[in-house]
Amino acid sequence: MPKSAEGSKMRMAELSRRSGMSVATIKYYLREGLLHPGRRTSVNQAVYDHDHLQRLGLIRALTAVAGLPLSTVRKVVEAVSTSVTDIDAMAVTQDALVGQTSADAADDRSQVDPKPVLDRIVAKRGWTCEPTSPAYRAAEQAIAQVEAEGLTEILERLDEYAEAADRVGRTDLAAIADAESMDQRIRAVVLGSVLRRPLFDALVLLAQQHWAQRES
Amino acid sequence: MPKSAEGSKMRMAELSRRSGMSVATIKYYLREGLLHPGRRTSVNQAVYDHDHLQRLGLIRALTAVAGLPLSTVRKVVEAVSTSVTDIDAMAVTQDALVGQTSADAADDRSQVDPKPVLDRIVAKRGWTCEPTSPAYRAAEQAIAQVEAEGLTEILERLDEYAEAADRVGRTDLAAIADAESMDQRIRAVVLGSVLRRPLFDALVLLAQQHWAQRES
Repeated sequence: MPKSAEGSKMRMAELSRRSGMSVATIKYYLREGLLHPGRRTSVNQAVYDHDHLQRLGLIRALTAVAGLPLSTVRKVVEAVSTSVTDIDAMAVTQDALVGQTSADAADDRSQVDPKPVLDRIVAKRGWTCEPTSPAYRAAEQAIAQVEAEGLTEILERLDEYAEAADRVGRTDLAAIADAESMDQRIRAVVLGSVLRRPLFDALVLLAQQHWAQRES
Repeated sequence: MPKSAEGSKMRMAELSRRSGMSVATIKYYLREGLLHPGRRTSVNQAVYDHDHLQRLGLIRALTAVAGLPLSTVRKVVEAVSTSVTDIDAMAVTQDALVGQTSADAADDRSQVDPKPVLDRIVAKRGWTCEPTSPAYRAAEQAIAQVEAEGLTEILERLDEYAEAADRVGRTDLAAIADAESMDQRIRAVVLGSVLRRPLFDALVLLAQQHWAQRES
């Protein structure tokens, strides 16, 4: 259950201090409409609250950590502000994160159609997923590349990879389940996918080291 | 067990055709000492064999797919040529692959020491691994970044990630177990880590889609 939002109001200087963002940056986000206005207390003063802090945390994750362009940040923030369910906001976030990395591979054309391979895996795991989503297309592209390099030994073990991926995806979601607001959850999704990835990759290398020694 | 190497000899033109590399490129690798010379049959002719094909496959994986600079390719090829065991060649390969990606993060300095967290995970899984290896340092850096962003929810679930990573690392090694030579095994390690990664990442996104729908 979400914790109750802290009721304390703060002025711009405190919002800047607690968010770690400069006043100029915060004012920029206000002008751009990424951050909703504070409550006016006089002609040139306003007070901000816990929601503003959380929104700034989300924006920081999308810009500084994930390195997304402002136009994409805007899409995610709008989705978070208007989505009724997490799923819609999550879909937009995944699209933003995948769109950024899969553009490079978009030109790869393989002779083999990767769809049947992927469909079999998805069906076997019982995953319900959207074949038009960027994640699905990214998986198709990745399979096509593996096929193009003739790495059938990887495709033969796709079930095992999918099972481990299921575990990781479930753990990712469990990790954000306690977040108290959609801003926080989406921030966790962004940071999770950007920062958990190199961590997981490094853990795989350590596991490889270990098992290579065992099997030699 | 390795299949017996094909005994058939071939001339440069056939080596070029079967490897998919231009004669000029192959001659360049010969001059650079990355490819061992063929057996001379006359003043300006030589024959090549299956080992040459496999070496070219390894070089292609290191250059075209992994995008490593020639100086690093040379180190890996030398390790493959001189190593008695797979472990040594594998260590050099991992270093080459990790060194390429972790340089960016090398400046990150966190207040928290990530070593105890990582040591606990390694001990818990019973992994034997080298604390001075690039993989270990990459894991430390990744943990430090996660800590710096305050994502304690990820650190709390490190055991589950490590278990999935163990599965992936083991599967990676199982996938290369049938390779018939060290050249082929190291090629499979390189292609595996470069191509399996985006594939696995995409599968994780599909799993996230699935579980996000289930839990909403």
